[in-house]
Amino acid sequence: MITIIMGSESDLKIAEKGAPLLKEFGIPFEVRVASAHRTPELVEEIMKNSQAKVFIAIAGLAAHLPGVVAALTTKPVIAVPVESKLDGMDALLSCVQMPPGIPTATVGIDRGDNAAILAAEIIAISDEEVSKKLVEFREKQKEKVIKSDEKVRNLF
Amino acid sequence: MITIIMGSESDLKIAEKGAPLLKEFGIPFEVRVASAHRTPELVEEIMKNSQAKVFIAIAGLAAHLPGVVAALTTKPVIAVPVESKLDGMDALLSCVQMPPGIPTATVGIDRGDNAAILAAEIIAISDEEVSKKLVEFREKQKEKVIKSDEKVRNLF
Amino acid sequence: MITIIMGSESDLKIAEKGAPLLKEFGIPFEVRVASAHRTPELVEEIMKNSQAKVFIAIAGLAAHLPGVVAALTTKPVIAVPVESKLDGMDALLSCVQMPPGIPTATVGIDRGDNAAILAAEIIAISDEEVSKKLVEFREKQKEKVIKSDEKVRNLF
Amino acid sequence: MITIIMGSESDLKIAEKGAPLLKEFGIPFEVRVASAHRTPELVEEIMKNSQAKVFIAIAGLAAHLPGVVAALTTKPVIAVPVESKLDGMDALLSCVQMPPGIPTATVGIDRGDNAAILAAEIIAISDEEVSKKLVEFREKQKEKVIKSDEKVRNLF
Amino acid sequence: MITIIMGSESDLKIAEKGAPLLKEFGIPFEVRVASAHRTPELVEEIMKNSQAKVFIAIAGLAAHLPGVVAALTTKPVIAVPVESKLDGMDALLSCVQMPPGIPTATVGIDRGDNAAILAAEIIAISDEEVSKKLVEFREKQKEKVIKSDEKVRNLF
Amino acid sequence: MITIIMGSESDLKIAEKGAPLLKEFGIPFEVRVASAHRTPELVEEIMKNSQAKVFIAIAGLAAHLPGVVAALTTKPVIAVPVESKLDGMDALLSCVQMPPGIPTATVGIDRGDNAAILAAEIIAISDEEVSKKLVEFREKQKEKVIKSDEKVRNLF
Amino acid sequence: MITIIMGSESDLKIAEKGAPLLKEFGIPFEVRVASAHRTPELVEEIMKNSQAKVFIAIAGLAAHLPGVVAALTTKPVIAVPVESKLDGMDALLSCVQMPPGIPTATVGIDRGDNAAILAAEIIAISDEEVSKKLVEFREKQKEKVIKSDEKVRNLF
Amino acid sequence: MITIIMGSESDLKIAEKGAPLLKEFGIPFEVRVASAHRTPELVEEIMKNSQAKVFIAIAGLAAHLPGVVAALTTKPVIAVPVESKLDGMDALLSCVQMPPGIPTATVGIDRGDNAAILAAEIIAISDEEVSKKLVEFREKQKEKVIKSDEKVRNLF
Repeated sequence: MITIIMGSESDLKIAEKGAPLLKEFGIPFEVRVASAHRTPELVEEIMKNSQAKVFIAIAGLAAHLPGVVAALTTKPVIAVPVESKLDGMDALLSCVQMPPGIPTATVGIDRGDNAAILAAEIIAISDEEVSKKLVEFREKQKEKVIKSDEKVRNLF
Repeated sequence: MITIIMGSESDLKIAEKGAPLLKEFGIPFEVRVASAHRTPELVEEIMKNSQAKVFIAIAGLAAHLPGVVAALTTKPVIAVPVESKLDGMDALLSCVQMPPGIPTATVGIDRGDNAAILAAEIIAISDEEVSKKLVEFREKQKEKVIKSDEKVRNLF
Repeated sequence: MITIIMGSESDLKIAEKGAPLLKEFGIPFEVRVASAHRTPELVEEIMKNSQAKVFIAIAGLAAHLPGVVAALTTKPVIAVPVESKLDGMDALLSCVQMPPGIPTATVGIDRGDNAAILAAEIIAISDEEVSKKLVEFREKQKEKVIKSDEKVRNLF
Repeated sequence: MITIIMGSESDLKIAEKGAPLLKEFGIPFEVRVASAHRTPELVEEIMKNSQAKVFIAIAGLAAHLPGVVAALTTKPVIAVPVESKLDGMDALLSCVQMPPGIPTATVGIDRGDNAAILAAEIIAISDEEVSKKLVEFREKQKEKVIKSDEKVRNLF
Repeated sequence: MITIIMGSESDLKIAEKGAPLLKEFGIPFEVRVASAHRTPELVEEIMKNSQAKVFIAIAGLAAHLPGVVAALTTKPVIAVPVESKLDGMDALLSCVQMPPGIPTATVGIDRGDNAAILAAEIIAISDEEVSKKLVEFREKQKEKVIKSDEKVRNLF
Repeated sequence: MITIIMGSESDLKIAEKGAPLLKEFGIPFEVRVASAHRTPELVEEIMKNSQAKVFIAIAGLAAHLPGVVAALTTKPVIAVPVESKLDGMDALLSCVQMPPGIPTATVGIDRGDNAAILAAEIIAISDEEVSKKLVEFREKQKEKVIKSDEKVRNLF
Repeated sequence: MITIIMGSESDLKIAEKGAPLLKEFGIPFEVRVASAHRTPELVEEIMKNSQAKVFIAIAGLAAHLPGVVAALTTKPVIAVPVESKLDGMDALLSCVQMPPGIPTATVGIDRGDNAAILAAEIIAISDEEVSKKLVEFREKQKEKVIKSDEKVRNLF
Repeated sequence: MITIIMGSESDLKIAEKGAPLLKEFGIPFEVRVASAHRTPELVEEIMKNSQAKVFIAIAGLAAHLPGVVAALTTKPVIAVPVESKLDGMDALLSCVQMPPGIPTATVGIDRGDNAAILAAEIIAISDEEVSKKLVEFREKQKEKVIKSDEKVRNLF
């Protein structure tokens, strides 16, 4: 089980990059909206009730949500910085530069897809099914690149 | 009354830039240490018990403390980003780039002094005593510059 | 009373993010255009005549207006950096990195809305009416997030 | 079991921030030096022989090591960017901005300690012992902050 | 012979800036797609089979491909950082900040054209034909600028 | 007399921001295209033949033209960095960070207008006519702002 | 006559890089300290009384002084950004990114020497003596480099 | 034959990182000091007389030297940006962001060593001796890393 929390409904497009991958890996998940600043109680409530093994927190600007989520659990928290101003540099630094003691696992700017894959990798440590699916997924990625290679080689 | 919260004891040197000014302005204050990530309950407790009219939150790295404080009050929250890594750019952006609805009043990197002055300016709106002290303080600053000017003019 | 000064008519869209909020909070305000560089006398004149308790200064590029306004008052000055070049980084640093002694209260890039809310928070310290309105506003924000949460939960 | 790989012996000080924590959590680990550029075969060999559930890769400058490690496994890979030039911004971006499909879990610049804690959080999902140790560790951090708070309150 | 490798089919537009120039210089080349992260084996295979005297590696984001290519050869490797996020700063730093011992020859962001010219300059050291073509190319560039100059002088 | 040199025909839009102002100030000027890299001889030739009292050099990317022009004269050289990649930060730093001994007078990114005004200010030191025109121009700017102010005041 | 204004006595070391050069060029100058924020009236007074043909304004952090000076004159204003925080990037952007209409002539970070040379180049347009001194100065620079060249050639 | 040109004697320490490597590879070289701005004629003279197959140009700040050198030859020009201000970001961008048509081969900030290795890789295309030396050098680097690995493994 994975809980995806995003700071605002406008982050939906980032969550939607990851959701189909979690389905493909057969990992159940919920998607929630909760602002660290406007609704700190909702964040706390979600955290208390969640059965998640891994959390994905998505936020832009001064992206405090992943850190606030990490403060409320000792489960791994994946942070997805979202580009909104300053090319997303504000969100990236707010996500990744966590103080000693409370880490987040930050992926690239707008990388909802990689957050899902990282979550699956974490789940896969103790889930043989997901582990197999990840290997298959890696294989499919490889094949796509190989097809691109064949196509491009013949262009020149 | 002002409550100064800093994210870590290592931010003490920044708080100490502001404390003497608050004393000079005759504004009572307390100084607290509470980490948004390691002790979210302590932050909440401080906020619940504080009688402060203005909060000053001091933090480095992914400086979430000012935002977390701002989420728990509708009083003005002054954010002081502290230089630790990346010349303090991480803390600055984490402090200032707050999402719509929950502002912080951010001052310059390591500017504990300016945080105290800004707090005094806010208090002064409804406190004639502090208002006078601020005008005097401004006057003293002016005199210092004028003395520097006299000294430097004669150097060349 | 709040005086909003912007450096150029092109900053109007930023002021318009804040004006409706000030109306909602029941705080009277005026909006002025005055360039720190092209019309320093107009800035001085506005400052002399203003009855404002709080100033909001909006400017892009080398955004000197907030600093120039702050030099002419001991009232709190809220700075709104506007994105024009370099993603607004130039305006942000020009607003926030004020020298010791003369602070501005800087909000996020293009955050005319947060400037208005911060101004209201400052006014609210000595104005019970505004204080209530701020609590209501916070409540409405919360409800909006909760509605988003309900909507998004059902999408997956 | 965790494998820590660092790109150069000079990264030892970063690994040494994490190693004592892994010991405290009772997680066995090995520390290896292998350069993605000077010894790609050694990296491959380490990856083939490792029984690690989680990898920690530490590197500075154009920090390719975490990405190269991630390409060779579907286990989670934690990236630690090391400050060497440009305040570590080069290493941070090289670590975190991974292309779609192959994530790394990036922690803050020079945060060998947080890498160890994140690794433990991942292990703890399926290891009750480690999970308990993490909760205890969190508790101790909390106490330290509370002690700082008591100390600082009495300074003013 | 030159081998151009790009990390993803989406980098084709950058390769297409260089390919016509290589044709103009009479230098045979192949264009391949191979991801350092998704298909490390394909990269190795291409490197083993290539007869190239110079490699051009094109990649965006955490652009590890040029470094990975450079690790597999002692031939010169030209790196072309591609703009995708952060204005291409991530790719630029990932390309250019190589550790001691394994250099890449980095050209400007999105400069597939300059990569081809640089490759030709390298080939030209031991190829009189290419050397002449480069001088002619330089001459043609000069003429274009001179024509621009004539045109613009008459506009004012 | 002013000589405007731009590194490429594509910089014409920047020169066109300044040319009408020079006409308004009654200052004769020529506009030339000459690349520091593709046509160093043309740059030298222009410099040798120019009767200019002030030079304006316009360039993007690694904007070396202003520095190269400055190396060939002891007349003042105004540098205009042009936005092309990285929001123009590359051109700005290449223009402004000149080594000791050979300054350029750098204006803001894409500010062909300010380059013309600065050139006029320099000419005006020894040209009463231009000096008067500058004062008039300043006056007209002031009036424009005052009109904006009147317009905006009535909007709210 | 040149007036050098610096925002704070701590900028003296930057002014001292330029003063000896102005003496060498035989240009009279005064050095003043006046803060745009703490002593706006002093800035105005200096500007009113100054007989300077060129102004040099030196400031760090949110370096508003050059812009404020430029607003009070139509004489050329040379801006020297001083490194204090953020490697001086804040001061550089505050100096150079002036709005349309009011330029400053910005030199490199901490380049008090180049400010003096640029001022001399401007004066030299209508002062044959200074013009000759500048040519001599350029010649001496050249000789210094040539001596360095001779020395270094023999090292290897 | 390789010609190393540096913009100032203060860049000597960077040249000295590369010189021993060129000796080890058996490649003759000369080291020259010539400023693109203070001594453009000396740069031209060096370029005319040089028999070099590859040029290495070393410069800090607005590092125009590599571009100026590249404008005077169709031989490959390796650019080494030197850290002096802004962590060397100014020099890096001035080196690498060359306009279409005139590339430089930029290596990392202060990487005089990598410049020498890249130069050797270019020479090695048509020089069997150097090619062998490069392979040996790579081998030695590998061994050093393997020794580090052995040493570090036993520390934990």
